[in-house]
Amino acid sequence: MAEEKRKKVTLLVFSGDMDKLFAAFTIATGAAASNMDVTMFFTFWGLRALKKNVPTGKSLFGRLLGLMYGGDISRATPSKMSFGGIGRWMFNKMMKAKNVASLTELRQTAIDLGVKMYGCTTSMDVMEISKEKLLDGVTDCVGVAVMIEHAQESDFTLFI
Amino acid sequence: MAEEKRKKVTLLVFSGDMDKLFAAFTIATGAAASNMDVTMFFTFWGLRALKKNVPTGKSLFGRLLGLMYGGDISRATPSKMSFGGIGRWMFNKMMKAKNVASLTELRQTAIDLGVKMYGCTTSMDVMEISKEKLLDGVTDCVGVAVMIEHAQESDFTLFI
Amino acid sequence: MAEEKRKKVTLLVFSGDMDKLFAAFTIATGAAASNMDVTMFFTFWGLRALKKNVPTGKSLFGRLLGLMYGGDISRATPSKMSFGGIGRWMFNKMMKAKNVASLTELRQTAIDLGVKMYGCTTSMDVMEISKEKLLDGVTDCVGVAVMIEHAQESDFTLFI
Repeated sequence: MAEEKRKKVTLLVFSGDMDKLFAAFTIATGAAASNMDVTMFFTFWGLRALKKNVPTGKSLFGRLLGLMYGGDISRATPSKMSFGGIGRWMFNKMMKAKNVASLTELRQTAIDLGVKMYGCTTSMDVMEISKEKLLDGVTDCVGVAVMIEHAQESDFTLFI
Repeated sequence: MAEEKRKKVTLLVFSGDMDKLFAAFTIATGAAASNMDVTMFFTFWGLRALKKNVPTGKSLFGRLLGLMYGGDISRATPSKMSFGGIGRWMFNKMMKAKNVASLTELRQTAIDLGVKMYGCTTSMDVMEISKEKLLDGVTDCVGVAVMIEHAQESDFTLFI
Repeated sequence: MAEEKRKKVTLLVFSGDMDKLFAAFTIATGAAASNMDVTMFFTFWGLRALKKNVPTGKSLFGRLLGLMYGGDISRATPSKMSFGGIGRWMFNKMMKAKNVASLTELRQTAIDLGVKMYGCTTSMDVMEISKEKLLDGVTDCVGVAVMIEHAQESDFTLFI
């Protein structure tokens, strides 16, 4: 760490699915624990991982989207076997039984380990999610150009 | 650009979903605008992004697939909240309201910025989509080996 | 190969969908055939690609998951147009008609070409899939830290 340049990873989190977010935060916290420089960009459905549990949207469509895909990270459902919430409940039970941290806990660990979290301004604009609706732990809201700069400097970049 | 080697990105576009194609073309045009060398490989469902609005398929199954997953890029529906086309219509409305370019426009911008677009020959063979069914802007149709060469030379590569 | 360092690719296989597994193994065998060092990490739904065709799970939920998402790689269904198994049957027919290798054959080719395959211990723990339920061809079962090390050393890494 003294002389050698720190290794870097960028995670582009497009998905808001419980299982994919779990993968994203597991990689993020694992990389940060290995002393890597970790940057996460949240775009589209992934933005839910950064949201407070508050309503979003201004226009009719925006509010409708906010209702249908609303809530915070704890509302995320698995990409398979969602069964209207039963899948989430079941996976949470199974993870708890194995002492695996929940999504909310993993996200907090990521923040504590210094993982940088960005919201994508274009998605926020289209989906009508303003900056005040995001967590205080969010580093900044930026466009695709900033994501590309980070990815260029990274040892590996994943689209999740 | 004179002496320094241009940075390079490869996007492996597997998905034909409206939202993921939107992410892919946003990254592609953003990277090209940052003077990066951009290569996109379209495989499986992603091939729809390169298709003309014409029927495809020769065998019974091929024609069936062409009917069920037919049309061009404007027929792409979001990976969530598709609702039989209502989701696409709603997102198009929301994007237009924010002056965000449509998929067709983004794809044209990518072509204008010199983004190279390849079709995957194995997928084209299996799905019975012949080369004449793809847009004139398509650079070439190639196998996985060519994709791997591009990825090896890239500063970052994403599977979308 | 003598003096020059071999190029390396890491594939993080999260999905258990037939079409995505097909993409993953096509890239893996293609890269191995190009003399690359190939490592695949299977996590979450992707674990099915490494499973023997045996029941899994200990607790009620674990056994339920084993029933609902059970079987081996040949049970994988496409991410779109699954139609309760009809999509899998149709794609298998179409691939066979074009002399494209099946998933089971592709996986064997990967093993024969020396592709390293790891199971993710956290997912195995949560989903209650013990090591004995995985194929003998599996290299080892490891945590996220090992995956990150491989990714750091890779020329490109994909999340599939």
